[in-house]
This record gives sequence, structure tokens and C-alpha cells, in this order.
Amino acid sequence: MTDALLVGTGRDLGERPVDPASVHIGLDIGGTKVLGVALGPDDEVLADVRLGSEPGPDKVVDVAAAAARELAGRIGAPLSALAGIGIGIPGVVDVRAGVLSHAVNLGVGGDGLPLAARLSRRAGIPVAVENDVNAAALGASRVLQLDGADLAYLSIGTGIAAGIVLSGRLHRGARGGAGEVGHVPVDPSGPMCPCGQRGCVEAVASGSAIARAWPGDLDASGSPAAALFRSAADGDPEALRVRTTIADHLAAAVQLLVLTVDVDVVVLGGGVSEVGEQLRLAVAHGLSQRGRTSPFLASLDLPSRVRLAPTGRPIAALGAALLAPGREPV
Amino acid sequence: MTDALLVGTGRDLGERPVDPASVHIGLDIGGTKVLGVALGPDDEVLADVRLGSEPGPDKVVDVAAAAARELAGRIGAPLSALAGIGIGIPGVVDVRAGVLSHAVNLGVGGDGLPLAARLSRRAGIPVAVENDVNAAALGASRVLQLDGADLAYLSIGTGIAAGIVLSGRLHRGARGGAGEVGHVPVDPSGPMCPCGQRGCVEAVASGSAIARAWPGDLDASGSPAAALFRSAADGDPEALRVRTTIADHLAAAVQLLVLTVDVDVVVLGGGVSEVGEQLRLAVAHGLSQRGRTSPFLASLDLPSRVRLAPTGRPIAALGAALLAPGREPV
Repeated sequence: MTDALLVGTGRDLGERPVDPASVHIGLDIGGTKVLGVALGPDDEVLADVRLGSEPGPDKVVDVAAAAARELAGRIGAPLSALAGIGIGIPGVVDVRAGVLSHAVNLGVGGDGLPLAARLSRRAGIPVAVENDVNAAALGASRVLQLDGADLAYLSIGTGIAAGIVLSGRLHRGARGGAGEVGHVPVDPSGPMCPCGQRGCVEAVASGSAIARAWPGDLDASGSPAAALFRSAADGDPEALRVRTTIADHLAAAVQLLVLTVDVDVVVLGGGVSEVGEQLRLAVAHGLSQRGRTSPFLASLDLPSRVRLAPTGRPIAALGAALLAPGREPV
Repeated sequence: MTDALLVGTGRDLGERPVDPASVHIGLDIGGTKVLGVALGPDDEVLADVRLGSEPGPDKVVDVAAAAARELAGRIGAPLSALAGIGIGIPGVVDVRAGVLSHAVNLGVGGDGLPLAARLSRRAGIPVAVENDVNAAALGASRVLQLDGADLAYLSIGTGIAAGIVLSGRLHRGARGGAGEVGHVPVDPSGPMCPCGQRGCVEAVASGSAIARAWPGDLDASGSPAAALFRSAADGDPEALRVRTTIADHLAAAVQLLVLTVDVDVVVLGGGVSEVGEQLRLAVAHGLSQRGRTSPFLASLDLPSRVRLAPTGRPIAALGAALLAPGREPV
């Protein structure tokens, strides 16, 4: 099952027929683009797609329907003949009701968008909706072949949140709020967080926090995080200082996840993780430093638990497909 | 099943015969005493026992065997005819191997005591060993009739740790380290923790921390925590200040557990919880205060998630019995 996810996306059909009723679609809907995959009965990626997106409830439903239809077309079947659609999307998701709310970048407010119902009516097949970080956590666990392990996927982007996978299944929590480590205060002298607390992980270590701490020398292609790590690698003392601070705050988030849930692996994901190995090394170093003064922390072997999210793979779309209705529960 | 646990302990047998092969023993072994229960096929408490204990590996095995034999005698059966024994005990427990280590108060060091093997040889029936906080978490979840809920049992005693029960089953974590919230730093200006970090929850809010912060006016019967809360209730300004600080640190631990695992309920247990309702109110107030500046925290409804451990019930012994070999996995 897992290996099939590893053969790469965009593989064309043709060698053998696939029963459309065994195909699940996964969509990762963001503020500027939608990534989609069609997953076959052995979890092989039969087709993938990328479309630009625009904010607004109607636009979200439109682009989701367009991406799903495109994927169905690519495997030569009408959309209504497929098994189901799973969606990963930022914002507050009522998983049971399939309703999205408070998705600022998508122009969806507190009223709520009944995304599952509206897309299902258009597509003629059942739809499940999940928070994008949770979908990415599940996708990462499959692509990294960590199905049996307990894993947290720490999404470091504009905000910070974790998706938690226990024994291969999503742990959403009693009220769907598991993994909100972004709003644990770690720096009492840090800036106010939009959540109303001071010095939250998100306020001191997110992509937004990095952009505030390292606003300069941003070239056209790079993110503030990329610029920061490049300057640090070049030996800029101020960049080294900022990198150490950010990495220590991320280390605090990793420590939190291990001390509470005791996950085997913490996967660094989200936009900031595109920095790559330099980020993993910095966070692992922050954890090592914490272990130097604490034999207890050292015994937890924290640095070795940190992994990078797989690059170049649409993990949130893959995870969304794994959560589509009609699949085995994951 | 659950109601049976609520009818009280020490009920005599006699009305109807019980098949000894359906009876499980649970033992809560501490530094000064052992509490034991014999649990019948419908989870009714058939007998209970309390024995004094002494430190030392041999003494631990001796008192466990004595307590188990006493319970078997009380239901009129040889110990070897019962189904199995579960043990809750402080220290590092290798659950698979049934080996206890680093149990300072029991005189067991790093070498490890193969408690399951040694007691099983003596008793002639299988034995399972679990950390006492985990056993208490499971016992509390049953006695409070929260079997279906996600729950954390926050043990506030000499140290601080949590046991986590998800969907009615213990979540031990990938390496048995789930719930170690006692070693999350929450006060950068706090005292050093024996674990090597500064200002851990355990260093600033445990029974030991309370004894340091409120060493005075300890009467013969009371704990420092009881003395502190009594003085605070009497309006002593310094006691009020200390109580507020302790309660805020405990509130931080509750917040941590909800923001990571999103448990429905956090049960306050351990020696400090014998303070009772005053403790619950103080922690709930600390959580309310945190919510006053953070609409996000307020939306999580933290104060209402806090409960007190049931008093007068041997919850760790009950939980240990539920974990005895031969029972349904819990």
C-alpha cells in the first residue's frame, strides 16, 4: 500500500483498467492554489492536478469541483462514478458536518460553508472535509512509511499547529482541537499573539514571526525563512542569533509534543520547512542544547525524533484522499 | 460494568458464588502502604485490603504476594485459582517486560526489579505491571463514568505527571513517556527542577513546591497544601498570593494537556487533590483568568473541563485490576 504512494505522482493510466468505483480523490485547497490527486485501489497515484484558486465560498466550491472533474477526466471516468472525495483545507472544520468556518485566506467567515454538502451535490459522490494540517499529517505518515508509528506533523507556516497520528489514525481530540501547540506560551517576554496570549510558539517561531525578525535581504525567489537560514549559513552573527532563537522555540514545541503525547516522530512541515535540512539541523541542535543541562530530556532522545516533511509530494492531498468517504477508517 | 465499581468497596461475598477464574486482583503499591481490590466478572469490588509496606525489592514482592493472598482468602479461593493480578506502582515501568526501575521510594534502582515474573512465580497466575499514575487514570475514568471520554488524570503529589486515557484505553505513548507534563517549563524565573530544567510545572506546582512555598503552620494532620488552602480561605494575603501562583501553574498544565491532546476532562488527583473542591475552584479560576485576555483560550471552555478525582476510592488499585492479564484490553 505504502510503496504505491512512493512511485511518484502523475503516472498515466493505460497499462491496466481501474474500476472507477475504487478511486478516491484528495484535494488540498489553499488560498492561492488547489493540489489534487486521484488514488487507486492500491493507493497508487493515478493522476494529479494543480489549479489556481480564489477566495470566496462559491469560488472554493467551484475550484474543488473543477479539480475533481479534471482528475476524473484524466482516468477516463465521469466524476460521479468515483468512490468519494476527501478535502484538506485550512480553517475550523466540523468534520462530522463537513462544514468549514473561520478560513480567513479563503474568505470564509464564522457563518460556515457546508463544503461537503455543496460539493457532494455537484459531484454526485460523498465528500469528507478535514483540516489541512491533519490531512498533511496523515499523508506524511504514509509517504514516510510511518504507518505504525505515533507521529506529530508540525506545520510551520503563517501559523503553527500540529496534526497527530496515533497508530496510523488521526487523533483529532475530544473537540477537534488536538495539536494546537502553536498557542502554548513559551516566551513570557515575547510579543502578543493574535490569540490574546503573550509569547505563544506561533508568535515567536512561525513564518510570520520569522518575517518580522528577519525582514531584510529577501530576494524575489525566497521566503524570509530561506533568507534567514542563508545569511546564518554565511556566518552573519545577527542571522545566527535569530536562527538560534527561532530553532529553540521550535524545539520547545517538539518537546511539548513528546512530553504530552510521546510521539515517536515529529515531522517538520509547512512553508518554513522548505528551508530543508538546515531547519531540521537547527531544531535538532536546539533540542540537544536543552538535553545538555537535563539528563531527563537527554534520555528522551529528542533530536533523533525530528524529521523533515517529504518534499515535492502533495502530502495534504494524499492524506485527504486517504480520508475520503468509503475508505477504511484511518 | 461501571455502576458495579460505584457500589463501594469491601462488599462481602456470600449472596452468590463467584467463579474464581473470573476474578482479577488490582494492587496499588506505594512507599508506605498497599491498597488492593478483588474485582469480579461484572467489575464489582468483591473485597479490598490495605497493608503497610516497606522499601526494598524483596519487600515489594512480599507485600504484593501477601495482599493478593489476603484478597483471595477473602473470596474463599486459593490465589492460584484467580485470573490474574494487575499492579500500579510508582517508578519507570517496562510494561511489556513487567520490570520496575527507578522507584526511589520503594528502594528499587536502575537495575530493575522483574516484578511481574517474581510475583507470578509466587502466585501461580499472570501479573501485569503499570505505572501508578496510568493505573489511577484508568480507575478514575471508570469511577467517574467517563469510559468513552478522552481524559487526562493529573497527579499532583511529590511530583507531577499525567495519565492519558483516549476512548477508554490508556495512551502510554511511543516509549511509555506520555503525560510527562511535569517537566514542561512554565516559569523561566522559577527554581531549578531535579530534572535539570528551570521552572518545570513539577518544580513550581507539586506538593514539594507547595511545601517549599508554604512551610509554616503545618498542623499534625494536614499537608502543606491543606495548610495553604486553609490560610488562603481565612484571607491571609501571602497565602492568597501563593495559592494564586500555584493554581496558575496547574492551570498551565491543564492548558497544555488540552492544547496538545484535547482531552474532554482533566482530573486533578494525587495527594494535593485531597484539598478537594478548593483546589478545583482555584485551578478553574486560573484558567478563567487566562481566558479573559484570550478569546481563543476562552473558546476552549477550559474551566469546565476540570474535575476532582473521586475521593475515598482506591482508583489506582481499581485501574490496576482493569489492567490485569486476561481481561479485555483497556
